[in-house]
Amino acid sequence: MITTDLCIIGAGPVGLFAVFEAGLLKMRCHLIDYLPQVGGQLSEIYPQKPIYDIPGYPEINAQDLVDNLMLQIKPFKPTFTLGERVEHLAKQADGSYIVTTNEKTQVHCQVVVIAGGLGVFEPRKPAVENLEAFEGKGVAYMVKNPETFRNKKVVLAGGGDSALDWTIYLADVAERVTLVHRNETFRGAPDSASKVFDLANKGKIDLILSANLKELGGNGTLKTVTLEGKSKEEIVLDADYLIPLFGLSPKLGPIADWGLSIDKNAIEVDTRDYSTGVERIYAIGDINTYPGKLKLILCGFHEAAIMMHSAFKYVYPDQKLSFKYTTVNGVNAF
Amino acid sequence: MITTDLCIIGAGPVGLFAVFEAGLLKMRCHLIDYLPQVGGQLSEIYPQKPIYDIPGYPEINAQDLVDNLMLQIKPFKPTFTLGERVEHLAKQADGSYIVTTNEKTQVHCQVVVIAGGLGVFEPRKPAVENLEAFEGKGVAYMVKNPETFRNKKVVLAGGGDSALDWTIYLADVAERVTLVHRNETFRGAPDSASKVFDLANKGKIDLILSANLKELGGNGTLKTVTLEGKSKEEIVLDADYLIPLFGLSPKLGPIADWGLSIDKNAIEVDTRDYSTGVERIYAIGDINTYPGKLKLILCGFHEAAIMMHSAFKYVYPDQKLSFKYTTVNGVNAF
Ligand SMILES: Cc1cc2nc3c(=O)[nH]c(=O)nc-3n(C[C@H](O)[C@H](O)[C@H](O)COP(=O)(O)OP(=O)(O)OC[C@H]3O[C@@H](n4cnc5c(N)ncnc54)[C@H](O)[C@@H]3O)c2cc1C
Ligand SMILES: Cc1cc2nc3c(=O)[nH]c(=O)nc-3n(C[C@H](O)[C@H](O)[C@H](O)COP(=O)(O)OP(=O)(O)OC[C@H]3O[C@@H](n4cnc5c(N)ncnc54)[C@H](O)[C@@H]3O)c2cc1C
Repeated sequence: MITTDLCIIGAGPVGLFAVFEAGLLKMRCHLIDYLPQVGGQLSEIYPQKPIYDIPGYPEINAQDLVDNLMLQIKPFKPTFTLGERVEHLAKQADGSYIVTTNEKTQVHCQVVVIAGGLGVFEPRKPAVENLEAFEGKGVAYMVKNPETFRNKKVVLAGGGDSALDWTIYLADVAERVTLVHRNETFRGAPDSASKVFDLANKGKIDLILSANLKELGGNGTLKTVTLEGKSKEEIVLDADYLIPLFGLSPKLGPIADWGLSIDKNAIEVDTRDYSTGVERIYAIGDINTYPGKLKLILCGFHEAAIMMHSAFKYVYPDQKLSFKYTTVNGVNAF
Repeated sequence: MITTDLCIIGAGPVGLFAVFEAGLLKMRCHLIDYLPQVGGQLSEIYPQKPIYDIPGYPEINAQDLVDNLMLQIKPFKPTFTLGERVEHLAKQADGSYIVTTNEKTQVHCQVVVIAGGLGVFEPRKPAVENLEAFEGKGVAYMVKNPETFRNKKVVLAGGGDSALDWTIYLADVAERVTLVHRNETFRGAPDSASKVFDLANKGKIDLILSANLKELGGNGTLKTVTLEGKSKEEIVLDADYLIPLFGLSPKLGPIADWGLSIDKNAIEVDTRDYSTGVERIYAIGDINTYPGKLKLILCGFHEAAIMMHSAFKYVYPDQKLSFKYTTVNGVNAF
């Protein structure tokens, strides 16, 4: 069991900055995110795109903003559980919470901060009949740890950046990589695409274009992936793993089941402190809603600051919060 | 008469960023500030101090933040009236406002945004009997335009950075500069102090230490400044100008007289849109108050964003606001 002051669900920009505001008030944080990396929508959807409305940055790349936030919170030593989805919140007799993930990781905390954005990013699944039967038994929708695939036969499917990037990466790790794509051209970055064609020309990977996933075979665990080729012919590939990379789309997911007041896929909060109505549970960033709400990064930053001043009383019930400017007080790590 | 969509009172960080949020919605802004420079408290009180809680900046000097904000709003071409204090707001028959300054500058606008921080910075005045009789007639508390002092006899008083910096600057502009200070050492930056001692040693300025301002003389306009020296002796200086630089302290000032609901020197607002209760008048940044309010720069940024989405209807009554991410839409200047 991990023990911390605040458990933050979601490590997007708002969850990350919340660590800073908590840190100024000497509260420690553990963050959980279903994605294998921090940064939320910024790192998952548009890492290399510029953002123009971060105050003080005429322009900043999304991933650079995430990297700067990670630097900014470093003095407060946050801890992370990545690649796991929070499923349950359980209130304890003393008011504290135990947060549990799909992989049974448990975090004991005084306050729960939901910074879940648009929800968990769920993979878009291809229409293959017996796909779900092989999930976790050969079918994976994300590469959490590339070492899993060392010396294995891996089939990747997709035509975007993730499919190209992981094909290139795993070419050196797996026994054999096959990339399957339904078109002749790729949506991903041109130089990644040309690297992939290059690897195929050199025989380092197999590239099968204009083909679709059709059927999976195996007894308990995945053994074969069957494709339908250009002229409707069947192609059967030996495979230990199939990684369909057709993008992720966010779904509110388990958050909907925690007894909070939900309006249009967002949690209704009180703007005085961004509390949810359930004691010790707050919601900040894209996941919350209130009259006037704008789903902007800079708004989430404000919500994080205000929220922490309210949460303080649960972590330090006997102390009076004393508010000092960072300029005057510095960033006193602990 | 200046005509604009929004008149922003106060060019501190929040007033500046408000220009950006207005610009995204194609609304133009004119800003008025009593200080001779933009940046509010940051530029006036702590320009060279680091701030640690601007999201995405592990550390940034206050003046650098102001400079970056000026760059960020540049595409939207804001206009400025500096060195003037807004005195009156007058509602017009069509709902628009005319804003008038102490120097009778008038701005006609659809919406008034009060981003007045802690109020106008009023000079701390030395205890000299007939000082106020000579205000504007030789006594100046700020250097708005150094050219005013060209070839004049100028007496400066004070021991902080402003007194030192302006002594150094005006040494090359005025006929004669005399710096009067009540102590033997300066509070300002050591290398400015040593520059001042150097100028005095070279005979380029007069430096009178351990002396106090005592009396002013002149007939309608300033002619002499009388000091009391170390051993209580009187020193009479010929002077066209006296510039006492004993710092500025903020006072709510005229804002208190505009019929707005004021609580503890701040304007009460509705957190749905940071409106004041008087139609078309909004208040953002340190000047406003609401349950949970924190006087932080990052909170003012959020308030500016939300506010603009509400003000839009007064500037474009027939248009529906369409909200787009800057990443998707860019910063379309106009
Ligand atoms: C293309 C695009 C362009 C954009 N441009 C801009 C822009 O210019 N300016 C701007 O301000 N905003 C922009 N946005 C919006 C901005 O990205 C969001 O406002 C921001 O990401 C919200 O941050 P967040 O931390 O609240 O949530 P998110 O970034 O969505 O992060 C939430 C995280 O929570 C995780 N999560 C959710 N539920 C669970 C669970 N049960 N267990 C574990 N983890 C969970 C998710 O995996 C996710 O990583 C843009 C968005 C997109 C898609
Ligand atoms: C020493 C110090 C350290 C600080 N450190 C931090 C920190 O680390 N982090 C943080 O977030 N905040 C910090 N702050 C607070 C921060 O400076 C304020 O929150 C911020 O300046 C508020 O911005 P603003 O634009 O609302 O107002 P201000 O910066 O106060 O600007 C308001 C402007 O309005 C003008 N004005 C007012 N009335 C009138 C009028 N009638 N006519 C014309 N002009 C008018 C004033 O001249 C002023 O320039 C600190 C403050 C101080 C003093």
